[in-house]
Amino acid sequence: MDRNEFRHELAQQLRVDSVRSSAAAGSGHPTSSMSAAELMAVLLDGHLRLDFDRPDDPARDHLVFSKGHASPLYYACLKAAGAIGDDELLTFRELGSRLEGHPTPVLPWVDVATGSLGQGLPVAAGLALTAKRLDGTASRVWALCGDSELAEGSIWEAFDHAAFWKLDNLVAIVDVNRLGQTGETMHGWDLDVYAERARSFGWQTIEIDGHDVAAIEAAYEQAEASPDRPTAILAKTRKGAGVKAVEDLPDKHGKPLDDPEAAIAELGGERDLHVSPAVPGPAQAHAHRFDAPGGDRPSYTLGDEAPTRKAYGEALKWLGDTRPDVVALDGEVSNSTHSDLFREAHPDRYFEMYIAEQQMVAAAVAMQRRGWKPFASTFAAFLTRAYDFIRMAAVSRADIRLCGSHAGVSIGEDGPSQMGLEDLAAFRAVHSSTVLYPSDANQAVRLVELMADLDGISYLRTHRGALPVIYPPDDDFEVGGSRTVRDGDDVTLVGAGVTLHEALKAADRLADDGFEARVIDLYSVEPADAETLARAASETGAIVTVEDHWPEGGLGDAVLGALAEAGESCRVRKLAVGAMPGSGSPDELIHEAGIDADAIAAAARELASARATA
Amino acid sequence: MDRNEFRHELAQQLRVDSVRSSAAAGSGHPTSSMSAAELMAVLLDGHLRLDFDRPDDPARDHLVFSKGHASPLYYACLKAAGAIGDDELLTFRELGSRLEGHPTPVLPWVDVATGSLGQGLPVAAGLALTAKRLDGTASRVWALCGDSELAEGSIWEAFDHAAFWKLDNLVAIVDVNRLGQTGETMHGWDLDVYAERARSFGWQTIEIDGHDVAAIEAAYEQAEASPDRPTAILAKTRKGAGVKAVEDLPDKHGKPLDDPEAAIAELGGERDLHVSPAVPGPAQAHAHRFDAPGGDRPSYTLGDEAPTRKAYGEALKWLGDTRPDVVALDGEVSNSTHSDLFREAHPDRYFEMYIAEQQMVAAAVAMQRRGWKPFASTFAAFLTRAYDFIRMAAVSRADIRLCGSHAGVSIGEDGPSQMGLEDLAAFRAVHSSTVLYPSDANQAVRLVELMADLDGISYLRTHRGALPVIYPPDDDFEVGGSRTVRDGDDVTLVGAGVTLHEALKAADRLADDGFEARVIDLYSVEPADAETLARAASETGAIVTVEDHWPEGGLGDAVLGALAEAGESCRVRKLAVGAMPGSGSPDELIHEAGIDADAIAAAARELASARATA
Repeated sequence: MDRNEFRHELAQQLRVDSVRSSAAAGSGHPTSSMSAAELMAVLLDGHLRLDFDRPDDPARDHLVFSKGHASPLYYACLKAAGAIGDDELLTFRELGSRLEGHPTPVLPWVDVATGSLGQGLPVAAGLALTAKRLDGTASRVWALCGDSELAEGSIWEAFDHAAFWKLDNLVAIVDVNRLGQTGETMHGWDLDVYAERARSFGWQTIEIDGHDVAAIEAAYEQAEASPDRPTAILAKTRKGAGVKAVEDLPDKHGKPLDDPEAAIAELGGERDLHVSPAVPGPAQAHAHRFDAPGGDRPSYTLGDEAPTRKAYGEALKWLGDTRPDVVALDGEVSNSTHSDLFREAHPDRYFEMYIAEQQMVAAAVAMQRRGWKPFASTFAAFLTRAYDFIRMAAVSRADIRLCGSHAGVSIGEDGPSQMGLEDLAAFRAVHSSTVLYPSDANQAVRLVELMADLDGISYLRTHRGALPVIYPPDDDFEVGGSRTVRDGDDVTLVGAGVTLHEALKAADRLADDGFEARVIDLYSVEPADAETLARAASETGAIVTVEDHWPEGGLGDAVLGALAEAGESCRVRKLAVGAMPGSGSPDELIHEAGIDADAIAAAARELASARATA
Repeated sequence: MDRNEFRHELAQQLRVDSVRSSAAAGSGHPTSSMSAAELMAVLLDGHLRLDFDRPDDPARDHLVFSKGHASPLYYACLKAAGAIGDDELLTFRELGSRLEGHPTPVLPWVDVATGSLGQGLPVAAGLALTAKRLDGTASRVWALCGDSELAEGSIWEAFDHAAFWKLDNLVAIVDVNRLGQTGETMHGWDLDVYAERARSFGWQTIEIDGHDVAAIEAAYEQAEASPDRPTAILAKTRKGAGVKAVEDLPDKHGKPLDDPEAAIAELGGERDLHVSPAVPGPAQAHAHRFDAPGGDRPSYTLGDEAPTRKAYGEALKWLGDTRPDVVALDGEVSNSTHSDLFREAHPDRYFEMYIAEQQMVAAAVAMQRRGWKPFASTFAAFLTRAYDFIRMAAVSRADIRLCGSHAGVSIGEDGPSQMGLEDLAAFRAVHSSTVLYPSDANQAVRLVELMADLDGISYLRTHRGALPVIYPPDDDFEVGGSRTVRDGDDVTLVGAGVTLHEALKAADRLADDGFEARVIDLYSVEPADAETLARAASETGAIVTVEDHWPEGGLGDAVLGALAEAGESCRVRKLAVGAMPGSGSPDELIHEAGIDADAIAAAARELASARATA
């Protein structure tokens, strides 16, 4: 068998195995797999440099299935490469199988979970960036994209960034099979449209017949030789190629073939070809080359005032001073989030992601995959732009650290578009999340330090304005902890960030009336300190929660949830931002929102009198 | 004064007023305003067809400040057009002023709140689409964009869709002042890069000096004459143009000028020029031309099974049958969400938005602005892609209706990337939101009917699988309501959707042990029925909540919040999806997640025995 014949046969095997696994599962996307069979056969045979026995090799190539629904094809590739056996192939989509409906990193060769379209290519760009700028390896990153997903804006963020960073080690293989789930895509088989766009974004482009193994070979060789830019291969293919009952037909998306036996026969029957992908070269010498000469931990003087966002920046810079694995990204607001302090100190480990929050999170996911500790920051409000990427980062079991600054109405004059008022709820609801919300600058430093070694998605919420420093620099704080800042048995006030300070002011006023409020700093919102909260409920009988956030899903709900978990209950009054704010000064806005000391004291008195009456 | 001189003077006035309002406020973005002064002066003088006394005129042009931080320029334009006075201009960013830090629709001429970059152009494309395909007016839509925001993927969704829909009534004016917040953009003053991209997406492009009023005039005339495609005007400008202390300098972003008096003098002093924008033409005859001949309300037979997603589609189609103002959009999954039923019946009012969820929500926001009742659907999981747009839709006081299908682990084999498990939390935390979660098909029909007339952001969560029909077709349900499906005084079980049915099964088993569970269908998650829940807490003393969702911010937290609001408390045990699911059958996955009848019955027994011991 000559090489072209072998590759054709291998492609047929990938099709057959896609049909078989989907038939066994009773669901799946065989037709979306079949269109790209030759593209993957040629890639496996000589181009993908990946020793499947050594998935942690930093020098290996990466293969990202951006069209994650073509998972049957991916798993068929794993079988052909000997990474999994035929028995496992047929566990596709079964409970407990590693071969999930869409690929996830429960398989060691999967870098990132896909299945939400438009995300694989941005992460692939991040992997290529990591190889080039952090790892210093010759890894190449191959992303198999669908044509439908080119409608996602996030794809164009990846196109923009990949060219900007000159990622000649990135190849997007676009399987233009023309058919989406419900009909034809906007551009059908017009490869020129896609190619012109990719070129306008600075990419090399190659248009081919995606079923012609010789043309694919030439395209990959040309991509591998690109001296300075990423390559997009636009491959015209037919969905369901090779089986007349489904080939290039509508309404054949996302279901097993009606007659898999006939299809397998038409494809020439089962095969047991094996392909040995190429072996990666050695990692280059400058991998993990950053210096971390050490530096002074930032500290703030008790009684001074400092913004927690500034403390974030100082702490991040210090982490960079002391740890070579910490890297930072920002969405073009580093002088607001204060990641600029890291940028200035460690420019080689700082990545300006411009105003492209989705690409920013995707790059962070890629960097952690290669062992780095990424911290990514923008305004809390603008992290909502990347919410699907953050959700999927959790599915990817990624360890990423996000910081949202300028949270809440307390930013003042800029108005509601800039106020993060749903961030606590959004992040609490992300699987594996830790949500931290420092109330002073020294605490912020400690929480940033802790984040560096946290698993999962960790989120730090910072404020724009200065807050009083109430903890000494060497004070300790932990994830899941809280701090009882003031003792009292008549009522409990729970806040964090700006509202903790309002609660302290309220407690002063209440004390003037002989009413002793306990004040708890719930700096760890998720997980919340159920034990301390339950004790407060039991000892004071009433809790007022106060947060610079909408009423739903934030600190107040975290307190209620913790009490329920602890099996404790008491009267709880939640204060939060109820009406849509406008502009105004920070003090005016927290007053108008009913989350200032006045409102807290009033709520505490009301709860206490209700209890006295009861 | 000849016309060019007048326009130059008007531009200087816009600069002066931008400097003045920002100085009065002590914050704001005068330099980002100054770069686009000529662009707006020429637009106001002869091109923008907008009678400011008649903001509701359907035939008027729209001006969208996609670079919302240039609000001082926008407000200066309003003053020049006589829409606001100088006194109001100087209330910029004050508490209670309509002139917020970024424009919002508290001003009648503002169509959409901006300030989260990359959103104005997608909404502008939606407005142009609405004018062309729904209103049948000759409205033109002008969007002033920043160059920094071209890094947002959502901008390219707008470029893609605007060309696809042949929106020759859309003009993007890109103010390429080269400087972002922290430094130069990726592409600086390279207008060709942007122009090439816009052309590759199908737009007419014009490159000009953005301070040359004659060149601007020519560009607008060319844009107005475009026969078949949208126009992008790439205007090279200087940030802070006209004042040497800030012009084209770094670190001058987002702050008032140090010496406003000197700047005003350099700009030639205050002026009081007035400009009368052109008057719109008449609305064309085919506005609101759709038929709604009536049709039968869908209904399902008690005891049958039907998926709530199917009921959504049937109800939406029926709404289209009976109401000419209802329109539908979908993210290329209409045969999954079942908006395909509407598409087939009402193709002229259906908009295929392909896989571009951000553009889909932006178009819905635009359509409601023009009086339509948009329903937009995709998988619940994929609405997270548009979360920032949904957040901003609330700031825009938009009335939009969203449906997320395939919610929860109960989708089965497709795996976690496709499971909406954070949607309830995310939507509850959106201001003005209503979150509905039907438990059977007849109820779903009623809730969809109610959504058509709801204010704010309403969200309907549907499931993939069939659920038993438990309510008769004529049963009534209301927002904020609940339904006690089964009576009992020993414990209360609260669920919705698939978990309501599991709760009913659990109640049957508990009844076998002589243990009577009350079962509440919390189909209105936000607002939740505090009264019924409080009564259940008081009468049964223990509540088990169960949801096919992560534990945070969803139905369980809604119950806890409602109880707290009602001043009632009891033992509450929240059952929810704790661990990251994989693939499996729906039954396997709800069992593994601990939200099936087994888990509910066990939790109820445990709560009861804890109470007995206590």
